[in-house]
Amino acid sequence: MSKYWSDYLQDLTPYVAGEQPQDKSYVKLNTNESPYPPSDAVLDAIREQVSDRLRLYPDPEATLLRQEIAGYYSLQKDNVFVGNGSDEVIGFALLAFFRNSKAIVFPDITYSFYPVYCRLFDIDYKTFPLTDTFEIDIKSIPARSGGIIIANPNAPTGACLDVDKIDTVLKNNPDIVVLIDEAYIDFGGESCIPLLKKYPNLLVVQTLSKSRSLAGLRVGIALANDKLIEGIKRVKNSFNAYPLDSLALAGAGAAFRDKATFERNRKLIIEAREWTVAALVQMSFYVVPSRANFLMARHKSMPAKSLYLLLKENGVLVRYFDIPRIDNFLRVTVGTMDEMQTFIKTLKKIVG
Amino acid sequence: MSKYWSDYLQDLTPYVAGEQPQDKSYVKLNTNESPYPPSDAVLDAIREQVSDRLRLYPDPEATLLRQEIAGYYSLQKDNVFVGNGSDEVIGFALLAFFRNSKAIVFPDITYSFYPVYCRLFDIDYKTFPLTDTFEIDIKSIPARSGGIIIANPNAPTGACLDVDKIDTVLKNNPDIVVLIDEAYIDFGGESCIPLLKKYPNLLVVQTLSKSRSLAGLRVGIALANDKLIEGIKRVKNSFNAYPLDSLALAGAGAAFRDKATFERNRKLIIEAREWTVAALVQMSFYVVPSRANFLMARHKSMPAKSLYLLLKENGVLVRYFDIPRIDNFLRVTVGTMDEMQTFIKTLKKIVG
Repeated sequence: MSKYWSDYLQDLTPYVAGEQPQDKSYVKLNTNESPYPPSDAVLDAIREQVSDRLRLYPDPEATLLRQEIAGYYSLQKDNVFVGNGSDEVIGFALLAFFRNSKAIVFPDITYSFYPVYCRLFDIDYKTFPLTDTFEIDIKSIPARSGGIIIANPNAPTGACLDVDKIDTVLKNNPDIVVLIDEAYIDFGGESCIPLLKKYPNLLVVQTLSKSRSLAGLRVGIALANDKLIEGIKRVKNSFNAYPLDSLALAGAGAAFRDKATFERNRKLIIEAREWTVAALVQMSFYVVPSRANFLMARHKSMPAKSLYLLLKENGVLVRYFDIPRIDNFLRVTVGTMDEMQTFIKTLKKIVG
Repeated sequence: MSKYWSDYLQDLTPYVAGEQPQDKSYVKLNTNESPYPPSDAVLDAIREQVSDRLRLYPDPEATLLRQEIAGYYSLQKDNVFVGNGSDEVIGFALLAFFRNSKAIVFPDITYSFYPVYCRLFDIDYKTFPLTDTFEIDIKSIPARSGGIIIANPNAPTGACLDVDKIDTVLKNNPDIVVLIDEAYIDFGGESCIPLLKKYPNLLVVQTLSKSRSLAGLRVGIALANDKLIEGIKRVKNSFNAYPLDSLALAGAGAAFRDKATFERNRKLIIEAREWTVAALVQMSFYVVPSRANFLMARHKSMPAKSLYLLLKENGVLVRYFDIPRIDNFLRVTVGTMDEMQTFIKTLKKIVG
């Protein structure tokens, strides 16, 4: 604390990210990174950009990358925005569509970033409860809100909402923007991108940090009607904010072109997830059905916090959230099959 | 415009960055980039990071780079913060120290980003006038403000405030943070970093985009008392915002290690600036004394807007601001000596 800190700063609760301990080498299943490296095509594309041209500002419009992504999803360039990670994209979208007098809504258990950004931007919000099985009952979404955010699949639960339900939400709320955060959609969920043709109030956000193995590159994208994209661009341009750097632009483009690596890696992760779920169920865990690259699991008797600590002692790092409703669950990132076998073997030693 | 745009968005004025025209090749003296490429040492350090490890999130603490910078400036690691460009660093600092009930102050003519971010974060601000020769008279800085921002050298004027004057400002305002934005300090100005030992209310911001030729990498730094740095880190961590990516971390570290390239390039730019000033004065221009890598110049009779357009027609791109008090000035980035000779030759053809 310091007398120079603003009122705003003194009230802040720091976000707690997954640990990155340096004391020994862990099987690291705590931060939802991909266990698979980016492909050689991606690395080559980045290497090619490591040149004299780094002295220049990157293309502020990111035209080539936006064209590439538009082609990939059968959209137009003007339906695509790219930013420094999906967090930045969501931040701009909050300012563009949700900084109004009406409160926006999102689930009581979801990505912790949403309430933090609402406080940052003075945006009022309310939460609506997930069901007992951590699903979204769309009837519980408050009517006449200022906007809706749904992470799909949700974090940290992994539960996925069907596209026809999202269709209903969009139809029922034609006057507000519905932001669907698809950070984890490539691990078995169905994307609502096809609904973009039908709904001018749909905003889909994705990231290259998970299924495309590029957490180190910080690239997020928004897909929407051109009027929404124009709004996000206006917010960004109003403070000339950090365009994607030349290396990120090159790497991201190559990641979308290299479909084979993308398909192989996400299939491997889905297989490892399903194998892990089966093993956990056999060991008396309740596992929330997941379409993400992570699992949320509760043992029938052993407290999650003890399990977390014992796993850590034994070299396996998972995530534990001391948050109401989920404080007896472990959240486990899905790694390679080898890593998951180690995780299950270690867990067996602990729970017996 | 769209019915989905927030009240905030509808009121926004987009920032207008320097043009990046694609129609033909220009002598580009409009965006204050370095005309010199980053050194091979920097490029090699980045290339080394283009690896499998890109799948992982970068070190959120940026420990190695902060140690490197601390060593460079004879400070401690806890006196250093690194962010995605100095704009991000300034944004965090505004939230950390200036989001209070009292208005902050900065000059009437300065970097346009400050008022934009104040509006974004609902921070009240007042401006104080530069003198007729575009200098800061420290007696004109309002007393009892909520904070002070001074770009030194100032943009877009290039005028520099002496360190002993900054010392006086710090002494006169012990209860508020004084942010000195040294984006252009390496081109002949004297940094106020040595004052950090004396003043716990001093915050110095720098960037690697200008004197270190890394505009494409987006790296900015803050230097201050550890309590101030802790405040900035808390703001950043409160929304787990975009750490520097692995490539930027590597490139930035190498840029600080390679002092020889840094010294050579900034000397070349200072020489080219002084040569250009002399040539402009000979052609009846008034030139604001500059310690930056750009110049602000007014011809005795030809309107700046016409000069800007004629230069563009002739393949030389400079900046023109249609802003009160400076709307008859050109702002010219200092490029290589060759580029400046082309600029002067072209200008001679125009003004005769």
